[in-house]
Amino acid sequence: METESFSHLFPTMVPSTPDVGDPRMTFSFPEPVNQGIDYVIVIRYPITKPSVAKAQQLQDNVIQAMDQLMSKLQKAGLFYKVKQGQEKGTLLVLVGCSYGRLAKQFQHEKVQDFLLGVNVDDSELGDLHDKARLAELSEADRLRLVHDILTLPANQGGADISPHVDPFVESIFPLHNDATDDEWIRSWSKKWLITNADLDILRAAFGEKIAFYFAFLQSYLVWLTVPTVLGVLVHVISDRSLVSWYALAILIWGVVYTEAWKRKQIDLAAAWQVRHCSKHERRRAAFQGETTVRDLITGEEMPFVPYWKIILRRGLSVPGVAVGAFLLWIIVTCVFILQLFLHEYYSGPFKTALHYAPTLGYSLLIPVMSKLYSQWVRVLTNWEMHKTETSWDSAYTKKIFIANFLVSYLSLFFIAWVYIPFGDHVLPFLTTMNISHEHKKVDFQRLQDQLVYFVVTGQVLGFLTEMLVPYLLAKLPNKIWTDKKQNQVTDPFIKKVYKEVAMDEYNIYTDYVEMIIQFGYVSMFSVVWPLTALCCQLNNWIELRSDAIKICKYTRRPIPARVENIGPWLDNMETIVWLSSITMASFLYLFHPSTDLHSIYTPVSTLLAILLSEHLYVLVRFAVQAAFSAFPERAELMMKRNMYLLKQRWMDRVSRSNPVLLKRLDASAQDPLHRVWKDDLDNSGESERAAQWIRQDFKLE
Amino acid sequence: METESFSHLFPTMVPSTPDVGDPRMTFSFPEPVNQGIDYVIVIRYPITKPSVAKAQQLQDNVIQAMDQLMSKLQKAGLFYKVKQGQEKGTLLVLVGCSYGRLAKQFQHEKVQDFLLGVNVDDSELGDLHDKARLAELSEADRLRLVHDILTLPANQGGADISPHVDPFVESIFPLHNDATDDEWIRSWSKKWLITNADLDILRAAFGEKIAFYFAFLQSYLVWLTVPTVLGVLVHVISDRSLVSWYALAILIWGVVYTEAWKRKQIDLAAAWQVRHCSKHERRRAAFQGETTVRDLITGEEMPFVPYWKIILRRGLSVPGVAVGAFLLWIIVTCVFILQLFLHEYYSGPFKTALHYAPTLGYSLLIPVMSKLYSQWVRVLTNWEMHKTETSWDSAYTKKIFIANFLVSYLSLFFIAWVYIPFGDHVLPFLTTMNISHEHKKVDFQRLQDQLVYFVVTGQVLGFLTEMLVPYLLAKLPNKIWTDKKQNQVTDPFIKKVYKEVAMDEYNIYTDYVEMIIQFGYVSMFSVVWPLTALCCQLNNWIELRSDAIKICKYTRRPIPARVENIGPWLDNMETIVWLSSITMASFLYLFHPSTDLHSIYTPVSTLLAILLSEHLYVLVRFAVQAAFSAFPERAELMMKRNMYLLKQRWMDRVSRSNPVLLKRLDASAQDPLHRVWKDDLDNSGESERAAQWIRQDFKLE
Repeated sequence: METESFSHLFPTMVPSTPDVGDPRMTFSFPEPVNQGIDYVIVIRYPITKPSVAKAQQLQDNVIQAMDQLMSKLQKAGLFYKVKQGQEKGTLLVLVGCSYGRLAKQFQHEKVQDFLLGVNVDDSELGDLHDKARLAELSEADRLRLVHDILTLPANQGGADISPHVDPFVESIFPLHNDATDDEWIRSWSKKWLITNADLDILRAAFGEKIAFYFAFLQSYLVWLTVPTVLGVLVHVISDRSLVSWYALAILIWGVVYTEAWKRKQIDLAAAWQVRHCSKHERRRAAFQGETTVRDLITGEEMPFVPYWKIILRRGLSVPGVAVGAFLLWIIVTCVFILQLFLHEYYSGPFKTALHYAPTLGYSLLIPVMSKLYSQWVRVLTNWEMHKTETSWDSAYTKKIFIANFLVSYLSLFFIAWVYIPFGDHVLPFLTTMNISHEHKKVDFQRLQDQLVYFVVTGQVLGFLTEMLVPYLLAKLPNKIWTDKKQNQVTDPFIKKVYKEVAMDEYNIYTDYVEMIIQFGYVSMFSVVWPLTALCCQLNNWIELRSDAIKICKYTRRPIPARVENIGPWLDNMETIVWLSSITMASFLYLFHPSTDLHSIYTPVSTLLAILLSEHLYVLVRFAVQAAFSAFPERAELMMKRNMYLLKQRWMDRVSRSNPVLLKRLDASAQDPLHRVWKDDLDNSGESERAAQWIRQDFKLE
Repeated sequence: METESFSHLFPTMVPSTPDVGDPRMTFSFPEPVNQGIDYVIVIRYPITKPSVAKAQQLQDNVIQAMDQLMSKLQKAGLFYKVKQGQEKGTLLVLVGCSYGRLAKQFQHEKVQDFLLGVNVDDSELGDLHDKARLAELSEADRLRLVHDILTLPANQGGADISPHVDPFVESIFPLHNDATDDEWIRSWSKKWLITNADLDILRAAFGEKIAFYFAFLQSYLVWLTVPTVLGVLVHVISDRSLVSWYALAILIWGVVYTEAWKRKQIDLAAAWQVRHCSKHERRRAAFQGETTVRDLITGEEMPFVPYWKIILRRGLSVPGVAVGAFLLWIIVTCVFILQLFLHEYYSGPFKTALHYAPTLGYSLLIPVMSKLYSQWVRVLTNWEMHKTETSWDSAYTKKIFIANFLVSYLSLFFIAWVYIPFGDHVLPFLTTMNISHEHKKVDFQRLQDQLVYFVVTGQVLGFLTEMLVPYLLAKLPNKIWTDKKQNQVTDPFIKKVYKEVAMDEYNIYTDYVEMIIQFGYVSMFSVVWPLTALCCQLNNWIELRSDAIKICKYTRRPIPARVENIGPWLDNMETIVWLSSITMASFLYLFHPSTDLHSIYTPVSTLLAILLSEHLYVLVRFAVQAAFSAFPERAELMMKRNMYLLKQRWMDRVSRSNPVLLKRLDASAQDPLHRVWKDDLDNSGESERAAQWIRQDFKLE
């Protein structure tokens, strides 16, 4: 009876129990890689023993934790085996997953995707157990689903394991597929441009999150051509580097590029079928509430913290970040002022020796400090109690960006807005304090030199630290913790596992931040040195490949994740484009030959220049957005098309399902409309009556 | 077989053929109002006859058109009858709809709503023919669905009739329900505040579009309390009216209010179950392409115009609007300058007589001109070839807003930024041209007077023209076109129909624009006269009620429409808040006692004040938005909750449906994972092995 009612909506559905003889059985699952091991869970426990009692206690805890962990895996229906780690005090749990278990998670995701609009094709639902589709799952999808099983709460059938939350669980990571990795590197090192096809291969191996980074890097690399060409042009034809039309072009370029990328990432998300996937809100396992309350949405007992407390913490973390940023600011400024002083004024003893002191500061002190800062803000962000990974992510990203902003741009702002306008005022003091000094003219050149330092030296150094250092480290026989090391295994597979356990996790933030900061050099400062874009483009062509090598060879395999855009980094780019309208306007005005830097009106008029320029930016942005919105979004059309087809299918089935009923309802005696209209139901005369009245009006007869 | 496959997803479904004995049959449809007539189609044709042949020709066209119209109605399955109009050359087609036909449209909408996420409750789908739900349909919903049937294209089962597109079809409108109308007016005239319950009643009668207008009006009325109180406070305690803390408060108030309204309208949309309803994109019938092409989405032959042409037209219509606005601007300025001259300088003959000339200009010339303007931009907007009603709407709204902006604010800007700073420079010219004049001190007072004129006189005049005039017109026996009139009917119902045919259509734009412009007086100018908000609040308390009367008594019943927000008006409000940061800053600086209006630096420093104030605005806006986003949206939670429940239902059914299969797949010999793991499937020893290794590490024994 009940089955009658709705089955008509789904004629496309096939029996969900494939049997031998079923055409969809004529296929075979791919051979498992890495001996069918998807994830490695690293267990680490301290083995220093303050006292025997304590050690005993600890040992029991570890054993208990291990048992708990294994029972969790058992319940979740995963395969696992335990191995000794290479270092003392570590164990490795190797996890695998059968296709049967995978199918279950897969079907859950499909249903959810359909309901969230990630996937509007209901025919996919018809066939949740089609093994053929299981067999076609990309490695990334497989690993993502297995990771879901590992981390989802028990009530959703997951093992609910997460590092740092479960005791002694240090990390969880998937194993590299060396074959595909090498294939990837070989192919990319051979070609000039990365195509969408290449990105698809990448996506199949590492998932959308990584694929999006490379897609962004690639499109940015291509778009850089515009400022590169313009920059070279300026460099060739103009004797001065500050050219207003170039500045305007860069402003427009910045706006157009950000808008174009917005469009591009929507298209990519559609092509990769991850649109709206951000609607899958995953609770952060690390989020442990004070009490538990019935969740408004799921109706389950959920960790809960009162809102005012969360807001309070978010509020308090702002000064927290401010302090960190301030200290960093102090240090950067000190190092920089020292450098200025030594390079520009000082001519006392040890000049040459002292000359290199600041560079040391740059290459040693500042990196260390910013590492400290990023650890500090990580603590803060955790303290802010974010409920979802997404919100944690964007909060952390913003904080990271601030630090890099300071380190990368502060000295340039200082030179442009403080040192050059007011630098000469320092000399008298030096005289009075009788520090031996030589007068150097304080001028625009200084700003350009600093920019060149960042864009050329900086990026070369960056490349070396990113690639060469790990390469050498990998080459050196690292004797450091050999004492900790034990059983030198011979089994090549276990060797591989040990090697990857020893690797760092891949940190996508640093790679993004590098690119966004570079985008800042181009859009905010390249007006000072038009060849900036050229250098950046060259750097990025290498970056694109070195990052690929880094991921494959020098870091653990990242856990595949679905994302539908580059998230908060876009906001940072837009902020930079806005700032570029300020910086470029101020530079153009301040360093224009006709400007008297020492006039008291200069500051005011500079501010006015900035004011106008900002409004110009808003205007350009408005225009560009309007232009973009005028053109239809391909992805949007695709989406609508599928939605329409789906609708049609359902509509047809609904109406086909019961014409009889409609008739009956129509003729139904109950329908009061029939009663009131009964005298007018016959419309045969209506036409003639109308015609008569019309003739009357015209009175032709 | 096929029914097997998916029915398990929908156990909640009930048999879709209600029969006698079915519990859901124990109900009765409401009695039809207006003799079961939902819509009146007004047919109007010219009856002046240049020549008999032409008249003959025309007459035949009309008759043919009528036949076509009626066959369309027939095909769509609607009831109809034709009546003579009150005036010569008019016919009325009275349209009704049976519940059977309604049910079909209703079920289509339900399916579409579910797929578009307007409605996430699939149980509703189970039961598309539940007559009880049909019987519970509000009048507004009923009329909306019938209007859909009237206007939808034939391939979607509609009659595809639309005014000005079908020949001689002048208009289509629904009939008032006098009983509910009177009830509404009675109840609102009795109470001080309009509650959500009142809005629900309103919505049931007139649909969401009207309900949203009144909801907005109501919330605005309430929020005005803040500036009212502050304003009175300033008026009492401060001797000067320009108070900076008041200005700041107003800026913050403006931002907070717009954000709060955004939140509010989402909540309303959720409560009224119209969220995402804007995704129903309805093609404008008036959009006639040059060619027809297969539509990318529907795959049907659709009218098509190449994009470049549309963009071209949109582009060209900008100067079109500009010209119109410019002419309007000229006129407003002339009238205003004349007024200034006569009031402030002139002391020659006929002074008193001439004194009133400008007022005439304001109350006659300018309204006429702005009417012309709005007709002009209507033409332009049609010329822009918008495909959907929504996009037409927002394009038209923007243009309308510009005109009202000019008329309402221009003279204030002129006084504040031109007349007061430079007004005294005029006197010498007057002397040289020996026009007899008296020197009045040009000062801030003049600005205040003008504002008071707009806020007090203007609004009173507005009220009179809006209410009193139509009231009187209704009272007067209008003898104007009695010649055209024919058959003085006695049937009271036909009388009622004639009365409503004679009415104007309700124009929601004018009502919105009135409120938004008023919002501008409060946020941009009230710093000049702090009692502004008080007057506006009083006015709006009346406005709320007079608008209700207007809709019921003096205009045709509006066609019910679903909307999920107030659309483009919100953008206009945000623009105004931004501008208020400019105006208030400039006023505060310019009219500060310490400011020398005639210093050459004043303009520059004013600009700086504006620059700072604008950034303050951006900052405040950012902070407020962050604060709002910190609190969860109730509507959002509701939505997620329903989505979650839906998901759970489907999930449960999916997994319940075939545990057997999963088992089989699990144990399947084909599953290569089982092969590679076969030696490790028994984990009984694992726990002990792990424990041993751990003990080894601790070496306690």
